[in-house]
Amino acid sequence: MAKERDNLEKLVEETETYLNDKKYVQARKAIIDLEPFDIAYVMEALPEDTIPVMFRLLPKELAAEVFVELDTDSQESLIKGFSRSELKEVIDELYLDDAVDIIEEMPANVVRRILATADPETRRSINNILQYPEDSTGSIMTTEYVDIKRTMTVEDALKRIRRIGQDMETINVMYIVDADRHLLGFLTIRDLLLAEADQTMEEIMDSNIIAAQTLDDQEETARKFEKYDFLTMPVVDKENRLVGIVTVDDALDVIVEETTEDIERMAAVIPSYKPYLNTGIVETVRSRIPWLLLLMISATFTGQIISSFEDALASQAILTAYIPMLMDTGGNSGSQASVSIIRGISLDEITMKDLGKVIWKEIRVSVIIGAILAACNFAKLMLVDRMLFHNPITVSIALVICCTLIFTVFAAKLVGCTLPILAKAVGFDPAVMASPFITTIVDAISLLIYFRFAQYLLGL
Amino acid sequence: MAKERDNLEKLVEETETYLNDKKYVQARKAIIDLEPFDIAYVMEALPEDTIPVMFRLLPKELAAEVFVELDTDSQESLIKGFSRSELKEVIDELYLDDAVDIIEEMPANVVRRILATADPETRRSINNILQYPEDSTGSIMTTEYVDIKRTMTVEDALKRIRRIGQDMETINVMYIVDADRHLLGFLTIRDLLLAEADQTMEEIMDSNIIAAQTLDDQEETARKFEKYDFLTMPVVDKENRLVGIVTVDDALDVIVEETTEDIERMAAVIPSYKPYLNTGIVETVRSRIPWLLLLMISATFTGQIISSFEDALASQAILTAYIPMLMDTGGNSGSQASVSIIRGISLDEITMKDLGKVIWKEIRVSVIIGAILAACNFAKLMLVDRMLFHNPITVSIALVICCTLIFTVFAAKLVGCTLPILAKAVGFDPAVMASPFITTIVDAISLLIYFRFAQYLLGL
Repeated sequence: MAKERDNLEKLVEETETYLNDKKYVQARKAIIDLEPFDIAYVMEALPEDTIPVMFRLLPKELAAEVFVELDTDSQESLIKGFSRSELKEVIDELYLDDAVDIIEEMPANVVRRILATADPETRRSINNILQYPEDSTGSIMTTEYVDIKRTMTVEDALKRIRRIGQDMETINVMYIVDADRHLLGFLTIRDLLLAEADQTMEEIMDSNIIAAQTLDDQEETARKFEKYDFLTMPVVDKENRLVGIVTVDDALDVIVEETTEDIERMAAVIPSYKPYLNTGIVETVRSRIPWLLLLMISATFTGQIISSFEDALASQAILTAYIPMLMDTGGNSGSQASVSIIRGISLDEITMKDLGKVIWKEIRVSVIIGAILAACNFAKLMLVDRMLFHNPITVSIALVICCTLIFTVFAAKLVGCTLPILAKAVGFDPAVMASPFITTIVDAISLLIYFRFAQYLLGL
Repeated sequence: MAKERDNLEKLVEETETYLNDKKYVQARKAIIDLEPFDIAYVMEALPEDTIPVMFRLLPKELAAEVFVELDTDSQESLIKGFSRSELKEVIDELYLDDAVDIIEEMPANVVRRILATADPETRRSINNILQYPEDSTGSIMTTEYVDIKRTMTVEDALKRIRRIGQDMETINVMYIVDADRHLLGFLTIRDLLLAEADQTMEEIMDSNIIAAQTLDDQEETARKFEKYDFLTMPVVDKENRLVGIVTVDDALDVIVEETTEDIERMAAVIPSYKPYLNTGIVETVRSRIPWLLLLMISATFTGQIISSFEDALASQAILTAYIPMLMDTGGNSGSQASVSIIRGISLDEITMKDLGKVIWKEIRVSVIIGAILAACNFAKLMLVDRMLFHNPITVSIALVICCTLIFTVFAAKLVGCTLPILAKAVGFDPAVMASPFITTIVDAISLLIYFRFAQYLLGL
């Protein structure tokens, strides 16, 4: 049954008591009906030395499913403790793509042990998938799918599914190939069940098929699941020979992972690919410090701009008080634009050819927003800051501040919408062009505009 | 076949030429083999008045699939142009959940027309789903699923699937119910194909079933697909009676949509639920101006802080030059923490009970980061700013700046990690507590720290 977090916490305590009292049958009973993801959660919440005990209490197939859900450290320590035959049992039960995912995270000596234990066919398949670059479609595919020769009848096909179906990751979609394994079409299990027994695959298959290539970017392939509502997608090599399939659960994982990466990059964090609470202190520092340092050093420019207008600031000290407001409003305006564009790019809604449309839109939006903000701010300056707080605000000073606001918003939106598209065009990740980066640029621009207006309108 | 953007653009031109020459057969041929999503793309790129023509060229079933992928405006204008029988044909072909999605976006008079046209049973089902609140699981479910009585044999079940399977959204998972429609278990089509013909559902079904309730939040339900790798999930009412199913394609849409919302909120944009290029100028302004205004007005505080330390700034003018650097570094540090936490919360990795762990982690991280930044900045101040740019930096001034840096990073990380968790605890959306909000608070804190250190170390 579905257990919410609190229930799981209770189960952890319960199981721990059973284990301490060596009541293994009860411990097994407490968790055996949970989903693999939840069993892994319970096991990792228990003291570390009980993980192997718990693991051995699980039936073979479930044990393999739970193994996939454990974190890398627990997997590694389990593998190290396994006997050869235990390891073989787990590896044989795993789906190939899961086995590959696990192997990719393990140190070399553990990988050697796993490969030495797997049967030759599994080993060949694992090695085959391992050769594809990280982030490629080949690296997330599985080679356990149902392929059917084009000359087979529906009856033959159903027999074949009954024979090999148990070991395949999915039997919901079957792929039709010729003698050289070229991909010809596909069939859903529904098509097969609703067809006549003596029809051939060629007669009933759908040959309008969208396939990914092994070297396609995994995110691109995953986005196709979202667009086209696929459950599986075939993966072919350059000669259009079927080499594997990607299933929707893996596509979903890719989408969530790539989005997390984007979000982290947008906040000037270098992606760590690990849940927050599982990331060590040093690792977290390492993922945060490079951009902070770079942005801190870049602020030298803004500092120099202020220094060079020191005299102007000295004669009108009140101007300093509005620097934070102008900088923040600029930064926020810019990041609104950049983040909308970055998201649009990753959802494939915005491409290089839309640059003109995007700029024209942001120009109109920024003029309206700038005007509204300037009007509100003028009223606030005269009514609140001047009359309520008795700040020395003259109409000219208010004009300097409000004109700066209009131009800053304009510049910020323009920089914010342009940079991510240009970054994408030259092959960078647009997500890096989000708030922190834009803020640094917009800071300098807004200060230059501010002092220029101050010189002009106040005659400094 | 899969067409990339450029190929689609070519197809658009080709189709337009055919339409202008009234070569409808060729126009039809040009697009008929595409995926529905891509056909919709081509149709929307054509002149608006050709959409109905193109639509009528498509075979009934495909037409309905394309209709789902069109944007709301095109759907509305198509419906308005439909004859009663055309409308009925489209509505009857649509999957129920798609029909409901479309109806939810239409103005009242169009909704009345659709409901009046649908057959009574469809109308009842649509009304049934429409009653669930937006964002609830009930609102994304479909009522077209295969349910099987617990006493049926495998042979009976296969017969039932062959009979009703064509109209169901999926036959990959079947749900087993008792006479009162209580949910008892489920079976995959694979289980069914691999079982003996005379086994009953009760014997072979899996009764460890995770179901959603109609009123569960749709995002919560969607996240379960990601955790547990489901293809479908049953939806039950409070009495555990089966009322519908959610399929993975809809869960994927919810995840992408909710993530976009989060990202927009993090950038101080009010979510618009529309692709960037389809959003009007006024709408875009409306989604961006409220937070900009609020944050602009909040900056009054930072302004007042600076005003009240005007004398200190006047006597050491160089201090002003470092205000942007301190504010930005504080803002960036804070948003690194807040964004990591916000993402962790929405992936269900971080909950209220982790608050202590999170704070303790951020304290350690911020001390290390603060120290590194301060050390680097001290070196930069003395070597670059003082010796290269000849700024009037003394060791005391450098100390003021670097001590402020350490405390600002500390405060920023603490505020950044705490606010999202607290927001969640009191029922707000944590995403609102991202960069812009944190920046405004951290600005004030960093200025107060700065001037305090200046007074103390420089004796101002």
